[in-house]
Amino acid sequence: MTKLKNDRFLRALLKQPVDVTPVWMMRQAGRYLPEYRATRQKAGDFMALCKNPEYATEVTIQPLDRFELDAAILFSDILTIPDAMGLGLYFSEGEGPRFKNPVQDKAAIDKLSVPDIGAELGYVMDAVSMIRKELDGRVPLIGFTGSPWTLATYMVEGSSSKDYAKVKGMLYDQPEQMHALLDVLARTIIEYLNAQIEAGAQAVMIFDTWGGVLTTRDYKEFSLRYMQQIIDGVKREHEGRRIPLVMFSKGGSQWLEAQAETGADALGLDWTLDIGLARARVGDKVALQGNMDPCVLYASPERIRQEVAGILESYGAGSGHVFNLGHGIHQHVNPEHARAFVDAVHELSAPYHK
Amino acid sequence: MTKLKNDRFLRALLKQPVDVTPVWMMRQAGRYLPEYRATRQKAGDFMALCKNPEYATEVTIQPLDRFELDAAILFSDILTIPDAMGLGLYFSEGEGPRFKNPVQDKAAIDKLSVPDIGAELGYVMDAVSMIRKELDGRVPLIGFTGSPWTLATYMVEGSSSKDYAKVKGMLYDQPEQMHALLDVLARTIIEYLNAQIEAGAQAVMIFDTWGGVLTTRDYKEFSLRYMQQIIDGVKREHEGRRIPLVMFSKGGSQWLEAQAETGADALGLDWTLDIGLARARVGDKVALQGNMDPCVLYASPERIRQEVAGILESYGAGSGHVFNLGHGIHQHVNPEHARAFVDAVHELSAPYHK
Repeated sequence: MTKLKNDRFLRALLKQPVDVTPVWMMRQAGRYLPEYRATRQKAGDFMALCKNPEYATEVTIQPLDRFELDAAILFSDILTIPDAMGLGLYFSEGEGPRFKNPVQDKAAIDKLSVPDIGAELGYVMDAVSMIRKELDGRVPLIGFTGSPWTLATYMVEGSSSKDYAKVKGMLYDQPEQMHALLDVLARTIIEYLNAQIEAGAQAVMIFDTWGGVLTTRDYKEFSLRYMQQIIDGVKREHEGRRIPLVMFSKGGSQWLEAQAETGADALGLDWTLDIGLARARVGDKVALQGNMDPCVLYASPERIRQEVAGILESYGAGSGHVFNLGHGIHQHVNPEHARAFVDAVHELSAPYHK
Repeated sequence: MTKLKNDRFLRALLKQPVDVTPVWMMRQAGRYLPEYRATRQKAGDFMALCKNPEYATEVTIQPLDRFELDAAILFSDILTIPDAMGLGLYFSEGEGPRFKNPVQDKAAIDKLSVPDIGAELGYVMDAVSMIRKELDGRVPLIGFTGSPWTLATYMVEGSSSKDYAKVKGMLYDQPEQMHALLDVLARTIIEYLNAQIEAGAQAVMIFDTWGGVLTTRDYKEFSLRYMQQIIDGVKREHEGRRIPLVMFSKGGSQWLEAQAETGADALGLDWTLDIGLARARVGDKVALQGNMDPCVLYASPERIRQEVAGILESYGAGSGHVFNLGHGIHQHVNPEHARAFVDAVHELSAPYHK
C-alpha cells in the first residue's frame, strides 16, 4: 500500500513524537458543509448515501479538501450493524433513526446472530477500500463502530430515546437477556472492525455515545465489559503496522481510570473534563483525543483560537494528544470557523513538540 | 406555626440523627399520577396550574396522600422568573416551554431588572402559604428555583435546546453580556427564595439542570459562581429555624468538591455517581440527596427494592442522606412502583440509623 504522507494522527495515538498536534473533527463529513448537502441530495436519503461507496467516498474526502485535517473517518452510521441483523433501519425526516423490527423480548434476542459481514455489510468495506485508494496516502483512514450498549439502546427502543425506558427496563429486570444481546453485538463488532481493518482502516474507534447514561456499576457491567471484549478480539496489527484503537464513552469521564485499563491506545474525552486533569489521571497508559466544546465553533475565530490555546496549554508538552471536538460538529456551524479551529491547532501546538 | 410531625428530611439535611432515611421524589407531583392529570385538565394548561394557588396546592399534596413521603415540594416551574421578567412564557403541546421574547443581545439584557416579586410572583407565595396550611405540619415544604445558568439557557435560546448554540455563542463571544444576565438572575432569585421562605418554605433547592453541559472552567465561572452568590444572599434562618439549602447540578458530579465549598447544606446527585464514593469525596461538609436512576422504576418492585438496598449500603451508616431519584420521576412510571421505592427506603434503612 501507498506510504502515508502524513502519519501524525497515528503517531500521536501511539505517543510517538510529532511536529504539531494532529487534529480531526467528529462528524467532519456532515451537514455543515454545503458540498455534503449537495451529495446527500444526489444520493436521496441518508442510508442511500451510506450504502453507495462512491458517495460515501465523496463525502469522506470533502472536509479534507477544505481543511488541513490529519485523519479521514469512514462515512457511515453506527446503526449499519443492527440493520444487517435484520432490524430494518430507516430515517424519517427530523425524527432520527428508527427500526421497523426493534428487539424487545427474549424471543427477538434469541433470534439474533452474527450476520455475514461480507454479504450484509460489504458496502462498508467497499467504501473503506475506495476511500483508501482515493486518499492515496494523504492521511490515515479511521474505521469505527458504535459500542454494544449504544447499539442496544436503539435496537430495544426502536429509535432515539429521551429516557431509555425500554432498554433500561430490560437491563434492570432481565439482565441475562441484555447480556445475550450485548454479547452477540460484541461478537459482530469484532468481525466488523476486523473486516474494516482488512479493507484498509488504519485506526479504529468505538463510539459509546450512551455509556454516560448508566450508573457506575452498570457502565462497567453493561458497557465497558463489552468494549473490553472487542478490544481483546480485534486485530491490533495489520500488514506489520499497529492499528491504534480509540474508545470514547460520552459523559463517561468519571470512569477514565477503568477505561485506561482496557488496552485501548487512546480515550476520547467530551468537553466537560479539563484535559490536563484527564492526562494526570491516566498517566502514560493511553493517549487522549479531544476535547473542545463543539459550541465554541459558534464563537468568533479569535475566540476559537483562544480556546484551542487553552486546551493545548492544559494538555502540556509532549505527544499523546489528538485534538478534536468533544462531540460531533453541529450542523449550523460556519465552515470558516471549522477552518479557524483546525489551523489554530497546527499553528499553536508546535512549541509543545520542541 | 404548627409543629412538624415529621422532620426527618430537615434533620438529615443537617446531618442530625434520624430513625430512617427520609425520601422524596423530584417531580413527585406529576404526570405519572392520574389525579395530577385530572387536576391539570381542570386547570387548563400547565401555567394555569402553576398560577392558581388552589390547584398548585392540590397537586403538591396528591403524592403525599398516596405515599409515605418525607417532604412536599412546591408545585411550580423554574421558568416563573423569566416569565415575571417579561419574557412571555408559554407551553406548546409536546414542545416544552417557549418564550415570546427571548433575550439574545445586549439591548435585551440591559432592559432586564429584578421584578417586583410580590406583584409578579405573588401567586407562588400564595401557593406556598396555602400548601403550608394544608400540610398542617405533616412534612416540611421545599421551595425551589432554577439556577441562573439554567434559566439563562431557556431565556437566550427561547426554548429547550439540543446544542445550546445561542446561549453558548453568547457565553463564548460576549462573556460580559452573559455575566450581566446571570447577575440580574442571581439577584432576582435571592429575593424570590427569601419570599418563599417568608411565606413558609422550610428548605430550598437550586436546580442547576444544565450546569453539566459546561466545561470545568465555565461551570465555575458561569454556573457555580452565581449559585454561590445566591447561597451568600439567601436567608438561612427563619423564625429561629435553620432553612437548609440543597444545590443540584445535574451531570456535575466531577465538581462535587467545589460544590461542597459553597456553604450549601446538601448536594443533589444524579445516578451516574456511586453515592459511597461521593460521600468519601465530600466528607462531613455536606449532606447528599439522591441518587437512584429514575429508570429503575420501570423494573419490578423486587428489583426496585434491591436497588434501594444497594444505594443504602453504599452510603453506609449515619445521617446525612436524603433518598431521592437522580432526576425527576418519568411520566410513564406505574405509581405502584413509586410506592415500592418509597416503602423500601423506609423499611431497609433503619439498620443504618441504629
